[in-house]
Amino acid sequence: MESKKSRYGAAGVDTNLADKAKAGLADIVRATFTKNVIGDFGGFGSGFSIRGLGPDSVLVSSADGVGTKLKVAFMTGRHDTVGHDLVNHLVNDILCLGARPLFFLDYIGLGKMDESKVPEIVKGIAAGCLENGCALLGGETAEMPGFYAENEYDLAGFMVGVARESKMPDQGAIKAGDLLAGFSSSGLHTNGYSLARKAFFEIGKMPLDQIIPETGTKLADELLTVHRSYLKIIHGYIEKGIFKAAAHITGGGFEGNISRILPSDLDAVIDTSLWKPPGVFRAIQRLTDVSKEEMYRVFNMGIGMVVVVAEKDVPFLRKTMKVPECEVVPVGVLAPGSGKAILK
Amino acid sequence: MESKKSRYGAAGVDTNLADKAKAGLADIVRATFTKNVIGDFGGFGSGFSIRGLGPDSVLVSSADGVGTKLKVAFMTGRHDTVGHDLVNHLVNDILCLGARPLFFLDYIGLGKMDESKVPEIVKGIAAGCLENGCALLGGETAEMPGFYAENEYDLAGFMVGVARESKMPDQGAIKAGDLLAGFSSSGLHTNGYSLARKAFFEIGKMPLDQIIPETGTKLADELLTVHRSYLKIIHGYIEKGIFKAAAHITGGGFEGNISRILPSDLDAVIDTSLWKPPGVFRAIQRLTDVSKEEMYRVFNMGIGMVVVVAEKDVPFLRKTMKVPECEVVPVGVLAPGSGKAILK
Repeated sequence: MESKKSRYGAAGVDTNLADKAKAGLADIVRATFTKNVIGDFGGFGSGFSIRGLGPDSVLVSSADGVGTKLKVAFMTGRHDTVGHDLVNHLVNDILCLGARPLFFLDYIGLGKMDESKVPEIVKGIAAGCLENGCALLGGETAEMPGFYAENEYDLAGFMVGVARESKMPDQGAIKAGDLLAGFSSSGLHTNGYSLARKAFFEIGKMPLDQIIPETGTKLADELLTVHRSYLKIIHGYIEKGIFKAAAHITGGGFEGNISRILPSDLDAVIDTSLWKPPGVFRAIQRLTDVSKEEMYRVFNMGIGMVVVVAEKDVPFLRKTMKVPECEVVPVGVLAPGSGKAILK
Repeated sequence: MESKKSRYGAAGVDTNLADKAKAGLADIVRATFTKNVIGDFGGFGSGFSIRGLGPDSVLVSSADGVGTKLKVAFMTGRHDTVGHDLVNHLVNDILCLGARPLFFLDYIGLGKMDESKVPEIVKGIAAGCLENGCALLGGETAEMPGFYAENEYDLAGFMVGVARESKMPDQGAIKAGDLLAGFSSSGLHTNGYSLARKAFFEIGKMPLDQIIPETGTKLADELLTVHRSYLKIIHGYIEKGIFKAAAHITGGGFEGNISRILPSDLDAVIDTSLWKPPGVFRAIQRLTDVSKEEMYRVFNMGIGMVVVVAEKDVPFLRKTMKVPECEVVPVGVLAPGSGKAILK
């Protein structure tokens, strides 16, 4: 059998899909197009004009996958959220460099084209693109016989955004005494799903529709909660130059991610008593009994984004941060050290 | 087990790799950096300044995978060419929109981190980036337990290039009587590997080191020949405005790819008697006995890129095309019709 590679151009629509599915998706994808998008469906690539970008613009790009959160999509048969997770994850990554998104492309690898799943995946991607003002420029759906288990797939994404060079985070500005402020997560985001699945399914033997006592929500809903995008919450502060650095808390947790933004002569001292981890994390710890250190290494523990601010800017931040679903809490302080993130 | 997601930043170097492997790779990756690259290793994203790009610049992007050519890498244990294939494939895709590459990011999905394979894969990617003046800005290596078979992986890539809007191919300029010129391929490129593997391994039962009678080369070498990049061969003609359109002959073959660039009132009439398919294609046809139509639908048949030129420009093209390893041959003509590519 020939390995069909069904490319889709500017529309993000798979050319191997049935015409009806294609027509419906084309509208969804077109809705994400911004005024800079150039080009037609089904081309060899997609165009994005740099008109309107200032001369000190820096393109900031990142690639990522969804990880084993996909297994929950497979278990539940809900495929319209993982694409949204992926887009929001990448938005947060480039946001750490001061960028807002311009466009996104996806890669879906699967054993055999699935006309029910692929449109659902693309819908989730388009929802994420719409939320973040990002054009879904295209992607590739690759049929790879013998690579993926039946009914499974892998999903990767690539985002390009733009930052003003003069507004990009400046590690050199970070000083001892600066504070770490944390922005609350919407749940697990896209990290720690191997341990979370072990906790709820293997150890807890919980069915997907069971209520988690600590959260009051159904297990499936909790596990598929979409990764929060911090674009609207944080980008304004970056433009104002309030944030000296930002760390997206993903795989590697607090230590792995905060250590990336530290100068070599400062430590980040995180005081875990300053906030209470949400119920989903408490449920996982109850079920698995893993150490506190392991929990903070694997999960975001309720804090999806950590930023460095001067102490004097904290009152301004507290006063102006008005996104009802997201809280900002102090999580620690910068102290003389050797570039490590330390949990207390 | 936690699904470790080992991101790598501007260096394209996996942070989970041993320090020795990392140090060696960092040099290889740094060698691809162009003057516009901004940022350090291990960040949340990678920066590329737009300094020097003209105001009428269009960013042209494309995403793709390698397809089942990867299975040949698995069989042979040679992992340092598939990344080069992927980069060259994407270079050719964006070239069809008149773009030259700026930067590339990769996604490697695997079941378990492999410290011998990942550096080899990145070496191949870096070789492709160097060949095409493209910065390897970063990527993601995702450990996905339970998704991939032992010792297997999937590899996807994402490229952003730049075109001048005024020099992008203009479908409206294509006229009846224009000629189709084909540029020779280096072999199978990255398409048709399911059928090729069936031919040589299942039907022919050939060992990897056996000489293919039609080519005089060893089977493994023939199957892993790197996808040709047409950047240096073609980009100058695009800048001069000689080419009205270009089609990269990939999955879908002649009909699938050439039909993408046609106006709705013209057909591309391809005369397959105008060139002789190279030995590897003749060997596959001998072994499988598939129809000629199927061969031209699955494979490039020796022509990796087809461009549309005015008849008067053909002598100029013949006189100036001086890349010894690549030939240019007439392959057909544009005629009144309905947007189809027709094989004669």
